[in-house]
Amino acid sequence: MTTALIHTIADTRRAVAEARRGGSTIGFVPTMGALHAGHGALIRQAREESAFVVVSLFVNPIQFDRNDDYEQYPRTLPEDLEFCRALDADAIFAPSATEMYANPQLTFIEVSSLSERLCGEFRPGHFRGVATVLNKLFNIVQPDKAYFGEKDGQQLSIIQKMVADLNIPVTIVPVPTVREPDGLAMSSRNRRLSPEERRVAPVLYQALIEARSAVARGCAEAGAVREAALAVLRAVPQFRVEYLEIVEHATQQPVQHVCAPVRVAAAVWLGQTRLIDNVLAEPALAKQQVQYGSKT
Amino acid sequence: MTTALIHTIADTRRAVAEARRGGSTIGFVPTMGALHAGHGALIRQAREESAFVVVSLFVNPIQFDRNDDYEQYPRTLPEDLEFCRALDADAIFAPSATEMYANPQLTFIEVSSLSERLCGEFRPGHFRGVATVLNKLFNIVQPDKAYFGEKDGQQLSIIQKMVADLNIPVTIVPVPTVREPDGLAMSSRNRRLSPEERRVAPVLYQALIEARSAVARGCAEAGAVREAALAVLRAVPQFRVEYLEIVEHATQQPVQHVCAPVRVAAAVWLGQTRLIDNVLAEPALAKQQVQYGSKT
Repeated sequence: MTTALIHTIADTRRAVAEARRGGSTIGFVPTMGALHAGHGALIRQAREESAFVVVSLFVNPIQFDRNDDYEQYPRTLPEDLEFCRALDADAIFAPSATEMYANPQLTFIEVSSLSERLCGEFRPGHFRGVATVLNKLFNIVQPDKAYFGEKDGQQLSIIQKMVADLNIPVTIVPVPTVREPDGLAMSSRNRRLSPEERRVAPVLYQALIEARSAVARGCAEAGAVREAALAVLRAVPQFRVEYLEIVEHATQQPVQHVCAPVRVAAAVWLGQTRLIDNVLAEPALAKQQVQYGSKT
Repeated sequence: MTTALIHTIADTRRAVAEARRGGSTIGFVPTMGALHAGHGALIRQAREESAFVVVSLFVNPIQFDRNDDYEQYPRTLPEDLEFCRALDADAIFAPSATEMYANPQLTFIEVSSLSERLCGEFRPGHFRGVATVLNKLFNIVQPDKAYFGEKDGQQLSIIQKMVADLNIPVTIVPVPTVREPDGLAMSSRNRRLSPEERRVAPVLYQALIEARSAVARGCAEAGAVREAALAVLRAVPQFRVEYLEIVEHATQQPVQHVCAPVRVAAAVWLGQTRLIDNVLAEPALAKQQVQYGSKT
């Protein structure tokens, strides 16, 4: 199979329409490029489930709250193309900013409530930009399934809510976070870490694991769980904690008492680099209930 | 041909998918029911241009800024079905509010700038509700073409901008306003007028015609054009003028000097009923330029 490199919306529509006429289902992996093993898991799963796989590479200007972050975001097109070819993607859609925003963009998608806390609180306009560009990409590619990493948990819940609320005819497939051997979640931003920062970065995941263990022992107060994780983070003086929250996935609202599965989500700064991560945490009781549920 | 009456999103998707498999193009006329000759023109044009015509009948709660207006909005389902059958529509989608909003709607489409003036200024949240429900309906029906009346000129420009900005794969077809013999624009709200109100209502159109005549004489100051129209409206003491503006269609922004085609748009109250209307106005010079343009 060859992998087509496409730069325009019109050519993407043509390629997808042709595949669909041939009876193919369309799998779509939207990315900002700088591909790593996390994206690899998304593309691999799309490849298994769909006859025609489209990967988009687009650093979306309207989701950056800081211009320097947009400018410094890693761009590695030749390596990304090689990466997609090795994983047998059928088409790569790599538009310019002018192609995606030919006229001043005045239309925006707001997913209220879910967008307000966590990353939304610290990156104003970020999720509005994410929801808007994904809505555009869904309208351009018209996939049957689209693949998103669980690492961006709040983004995932917002996209799921947008798709449900707007009746978008696509199935959102969450894919588990891929980690380095030492636990650090794969991220395009990891390459910006200095060797010393890279050495301590996995402590973010260790803190989330600590919270997960606290929850696993049974129903817990969110405050105590949070404190257990923060204690781990405090061992690394280089960390500047932006947030660490215990939230319900579907609503992204913080819980007081952890008596059902939750997401423990955090954002920390290491020097000039912002890292986010999250884990699923399930109280023992909730697990038991599931087991009991399956017995009856 | 029979006209299918469908109440669920799933059945609508099925009916459209089947038609598309048969090679049909899909024409869509979204309405709030209480159908009249204006809607008739939309359905007739869809019928001429598309093999499969879907009409939706849905009084959309989230676009009403006043609950009494929502509750009093005319609902005439049996007559509407007869109307669609007579015009040979293929499917009528008449969902309940629960079907369209199964979960609390947290996702909204904002078309900024275009939504802020005219009706947007006096009906807060109205166009957000319109854009959001039409986005939903487009995702449900996935039409090739959708038909909108020019009477709702600001709505038309907002939908055109939303479709362009979000890359929605649908062609928006504007259809000229249908009028009563005395000039009153067809509207579902006209049936609320008392006989005396109905008698004076056409003066709204006469005022817009007066503005059009003022513009047709050549480049004009918007203020003078506006005053010419307002003078006509003042002859009817029952009118309470909400707005009367000279705007560029694509941006819905008021112009100072009328030297290119504009829309003269107005909203007036007659008792408890709000009427809107608009006309295209072209300065003589602009017409000449068009003529010259066609010669070269």
